[in-house]
Amino acid sequence: METTATTGYDVFTENCPTRALLDRIANRWTTLIIGMLAQHQPRRFNELRRAIGGISQKMLTQTLRDMERDGIVQREIFPEVPPRVEYSLTPLGRTLREPLSALADWSVRHMDEVRAAQVRFDGARAGATRSEAP
Amino acid sequence: METTATTGYDVFTENCPTRALLDRIANRWTTLIIGMLAQHQPRRFNELRRAIGGISQKMLTQTLRDMERDGIVQREIFPEVPPRVEYSLTPLGRTLREPLSALADWSVRHMDEVRAAQVRFDGARAGATRSEAP
Repeated sequence: METTATTGYDVFTENCPTRALLDRIANRWTTLIIGMLAQHQPRRFNELRRAIGGISQKMLTQTLRDMERDGIVQREIFPEVPPRVEYSLTPLGRTLREPLSALADWSVRHMDEVRAAQVRFDGARAGATRSEAP
Repeated sequence: METTATTGYDVFTENCPTRALLDRIANRWTTLIIGMLAQHQPRRFNELRRAIGGISQKMLTQTLRDMERDGIVQREIFPEVPPRVEYSLTPLGRTLREPLSALADWSVRHMDEVRAAQVRFDGARAGATRSEAP
């Protein structure tokens, strides 16, 4: 990871602003929104909402607003009736596509290994409980 | 991103187990713990706690337990008095080092750009409020 020496920032320090930024990007909703916009953009609010299973209107609104404020997403309003609002990635937002899609891909690619580990873990705990029982 | 066609998993679907897995890995604490273990391992619980500013004992315990269950972290207990407990990355956990450190590095590298975007965003909103005022 980058060191404090080169930038003055340190993500391991609680009050460094990079910590709050990391929190906003290392986040399932940001990952999924960027994943969707990377495939096809611009997208309208309701298109994003339909494409990302389980996201609430409130969460999508808040996450897009944070992403717009951070300069990751661009919001364009077209003066139609009703007004059309479209979202797309900014050049800065496009630099997040690769690390975030690597993370989503990791989840898909290693799901079976993780499931096998979970079965082993739960089995070991169940065994420990049995052998501790009187 | 990986498609459902090759694996049967789809991170955009609310109930797919990859969604919950993505949630556990796309997460600031997992990112910081893996960042620490990538630099130097094994590490003891209290070493991790001191190195990661702002993490509570409860959050570190829970995150390490989830990571152990998912097969990302290995926990070793040495029968000393008091018992020594050490954590290290498994081979599976090591495959997360690169995508997660890319994310932490992104936060550090782009912090100044993000701050400039925030100033523009807040300024535009303040301007809009002023021009709307009577």
